[in-house]
Amino acid sequence: MIIRGLFITFEGCDGAGKTTVLDRVHDELEEKGYPVLKTREPGGIDIAEKIRTLILNPEHKAMERRTEALLYAAARRQHLTEKVIPALEEGTIVLCDRFIDSSLAYQGAARGIGIEEVLAINEFAVEDHMPDATIYLDIDPEKGLNRIHENKKREFNRLDQEHADFHYKVYRAYETLAARFPKRIHKVDASLSIEQVQQQAVNRILNVLSP
Amino acid sequence: MIIRGLFITFEGCDGAGKTTVLDRVHDELEEKGYPVLKTREPGGIDIAEKIRTLILNPEHKAMERRTEALLYAAARRQHLTEKVIPALEEGTIVLCDRFIDSSLAYQGAARGIGIEEVLAINEFAVEDHMPDATIYLDIDPEKGLNRIHENKKREFNRLDQEHADFHYKVYRAYETLAARFPKRIHKVDASLSIEQVQQQAVNRILNVLSP
Repeated sequence: MIIRGLFITFEGCDGAGKTTVLDRVHDELEEKGYPVLKTREPGGIDIAEKIRTLILNPEHKAMERRTEALLYAAARRQHLTEKVIPALEEGTIVLCDRFIDSSLAYQGAARGIGIEEVLAINEFAVEDHMPDATIYLDIDPEKGLNRIHENKKREFNRLDQEHADFHYKVYRAYETLAARFPKRIHKVDASLSIEQVQQQAVNRILNVLSP
Repeated sequence: MIIRGLFITFEGCDGAGKTTVLDRVHDELEEKGYPVLKTREPGGIDIAEKIRTLILNPEHKAMERRTEALLYAAARRQHLTEKVIPALEEGTIVLCDRFIDSSLAYQGAARGIGIEEVLAINEFAVEDHMPDATIYLDIDPEKGLNRIHENKKREFNRLDQEHADFHYKVYRAYETLAARFPKRIHKVDASLSIEQVQQQAVNRILNVLSP
């Protein structure tokens, strides 16, 4: 019996397999009888969708990196308040594909704004609604990019245009964050079989539920 | 001979007459031979215009106040980097209709987020590009609202729907800010004749140019 919700985020480099793992974890928890919601920013929230459209528009080459970081924080805030918090208040386990750590890794580290500065605007956006736990899927960024190129279904967007060097910076930032927040961030080796990764993620979540 | 630009912002409650005063100050400085640019956020900057459209859309009633504050900061950043900073680097006097103090008064105080918190995300947006001087047009908010209702040319937007109480909170916040930043913020009595207000504003700016 869950008396309050649990906020779980999934993080990792592009191609780490977050979406597949999140889907499988969602289904397994649902089968076990837990109320569970899977979402990702902007998560079908009208205002957040419109912000995301602005960010990813390939025409917006003039977008300054701090503008981008503020827009991500704005979309995050709206998705959080309209979708995540109401679900948590109903006692649901919310599984979210990317959250604050993505901004710290992509905008803070890879784009070079600085992790502390990006953390400050995201603390404004998130307030006291930090994830109860974060599943970090650890994969070599080159392997991750190869997986993406093999996946024809995925839309090409502005971020994919960045150099591979960018993705290495993201990777190193995730490693730094995992070391900095060891209680919250649970690292899972994403080169294992999908069944093994799923099992480790579910075990982590159940452990947070009943320590 | 100006060897670097000067960044001047105009602030005040709705209906204080900022736009009229700014126009006249611009023309007077131009006649005196100064290179001068008048602008306001989003200032014709494509990305900032799109962000502004999102904020002011009357359909977006679900927009959370921190989302709104982050969007204003994002539009500010883009307008600043694409338009204001390049003009300042060319040695221009930039006259900007509203800037950081508007967010502190409207989002920070009137919407109740808190001035310090809104200042934090705006410092992220502005970095070290704070105005060299701010002309604050001091008017009783009730008089200001009456001026607006007499002006049929102005478009009705979402902010106009707010209660008069909201505008009193904005007014009190401007008074607080003027007391807190007495070196930067120059208070001008906006109930004087337009010629007098213009003269005081121009004198302040010339004084900043040649102290």
